[in-house]
Amino acid sequence: MIRVEPECYPCFLNQVLLACREGGAPREVTEELLRETGRVVSELSGSEVPARVATGLHRLIKERTGNEDPFRQVKERALSGFRSLRETVRRRVFQSGDPLREALFLAGAGNMFDHGIVSREDAERFFEEVSSTSLGRFDVEKVRDSIERAWRVGLLLDNAGEAPFDAVLAEVLRAMGKEVWLGVKGAPVIDDLTLEDAGRVGLTEEFEVISNGSDGVGTLLEEVSPDFAGKFRESDLIISKGQANFETLYGDVERTCFLFVVKCPVIERATGYGYGKILLLGEESCAREGESLTSGGYRGGNP
Amino acid sequence: MIRVEPECYPCFLNQVLLACREGGAPREVTEELLRETGRVVSELSGSEVPARVATGLHRLIKERTGNEDPFRQVKERALSGFRSLRETVRRRVFQSGDPLREALFLAGAGNMFDHGIVSREDAERFFEEVSSTSLGRFDVEKVRDSIERAWRVGLLLDNAGEAPFDAVLAEVLRAMGKEVWLGVKGAPVIDDLTLEDAGRVGLTEEFEVISNGSDGVGTLLEEVSPDFAGKFRESDLIISKGQANFETLYGDVERTCFLFVVKCPVIERATGYGYGKILLLGEESCAREGESLTSGGYRGGNP
Repeated sequence: MIRVEPECYPCFLNQVLLACREGGAPREVTEELLRETGRVVSELSGSEVPARVATGLHRLIKERTGNEDPFRQVKERALSGFRSLRETVRRRVFQSGDPLREALFLAGAGNMFDHGIVSREDAERFFEEVSSTSLGRFDVEKVRDSIERAWRVGLLLDNAGEAPFDAVLAEVLRAMGKEVWLGVKGAPVIDDLTLEDAGRVGLTEEFEVISNGSDGVGTLLEEVSPDFAGKFRESDLIISKGQANFETLYGDVERTCFLFVVKCPVIERATGYGYGKILLLGEESCAREGESLTSGGYRGGNP
Repeated sequence: MIRVEPECYPCFLNQVLLACREGGAPREVTEELLRETGRVVSELSGSEVPARVATGLHRLIKERTGNEDPFRQVKERALSGFRSLRETVRRRVFQSGDPLREALFLAGAGNMFDHGIVSREDAERFFEEVSSTSLGRFDVEKVRDSIERAWRVGLLLDNAGEAPFDAVLAEVLRAMGKEVWLGVKGAPVIDDLTLEDAGRVGLTEEFEVISNGSDGVGTLLEEVSPDFAGKFRESDLIISKGQANFETLYGDVERTCFLFVVKCPVIERATGYGYGKILLLGEESCAREGESLTSGGYRGGNP
């Protein structure tokens, strides 16, 4: 797992500010929550996992604002564009010479958009702009081997905006003869896909979709439902989408590969790849607890 | 004066992180200071002035790190490039058809660079990139009138990187027959110019340079030396550089115009101009305490 570093401190307050703004919280409630977050960070130590701290803050926001889904509007936009974007992605993937590679590449790139790609125009711009120059480490051959050896594959979904990409990746996996299941959140958290959201866009009819039973940021294995935990354990391979899943699972699980875009300095240092890079880490990169991809870690002084 | 708004909360932690990094503070000290800042923001109310809160934080950083000048390296770079940049600016200003306008424009644009423009290449890029599209409200004719009516003019300097621009503006004011003095900080704070810095680049030989006697962010009138306060009061016009001086003086002083680049959402709302815009506000825009340039203020909900 990834541990709290100095850059996380201001980031926690930024996350609260963003959630309050997206959820339409009044100014006084926003300020009360920011003060409360000040108290939370004043008691932090370096041993916490950032996604766990964020989980606590998002729960506090829901409680204090009485709004169980502050990012609802963002998700609504993403869900309304789901089918047409998925169709575009599907065409590109199945017309390419290497559908698995293309699906992994686009699903990784889709993780850039936390807040959902919606309009046809946005999607077109996305496909124009995304290119292989965005690639960091991309263990596609390792992952291809892992998939070929696997029978049951779990794909842990992340935010609603990238779900159309993930759905196409799941189709490719199924076309390769795999038994595929999709992992979603147990309740709204940021703009992540829930079982209800998955149902609304028809994913539950096509695939086995399993709620992790938790409203935590990322995947907090100590909090997930027995159903999800069993599925996770019994799978031959897990493909984990997004930075928060990387933060919470990396180093603690086997048979898992990670696909995400680097979005903060802590993960830049942990992975050795800069902001905006798409990473696909093959399963053996996370064999041992506490192992770091690089020598990483915050260093004082000038860069 | 400008009051704390929700966006200030994460910003305070970011400022501490930046100062610790620039000053080379070890990780443990950085984390201790961030936790302490958490305690400070947990007790904030909306009536504080952001620059005053920041002042307290910068003092705390100096005390805990034992480093009286965390931005020393940044300032050294700025000071080492001072003379050649000033020469470039001087040529552009005195070769232009309207030296006062050009000097105000470039001194305003120079405020973009908190961390100093150093190399010849950076300066060239700056002059290529800065253009009138960066202008927000620019009350140049009002300010020209104010200057023409004034005899004694004080120019409150800001960071060391923009001081070469300010020096040229001071030259233009003197060429217009004004008695010009320059206001600097009483001790290091962020990368602002001090009396010692002004001496090192020869400004004290050319101009009357007055220390404000304070290491506060911006200009905290309740903290300045009697010498500075007298000079401020007896001047016919003050030209105040930088956002922090605007934050601390706006609405509370007369015969003052403000020249700065908008650098945060709180000032965006207070002024009605977006990030990166260069503003020159004539003296009558700040006649009354509490008056806002626009209807401003934080609003919850989606933008």
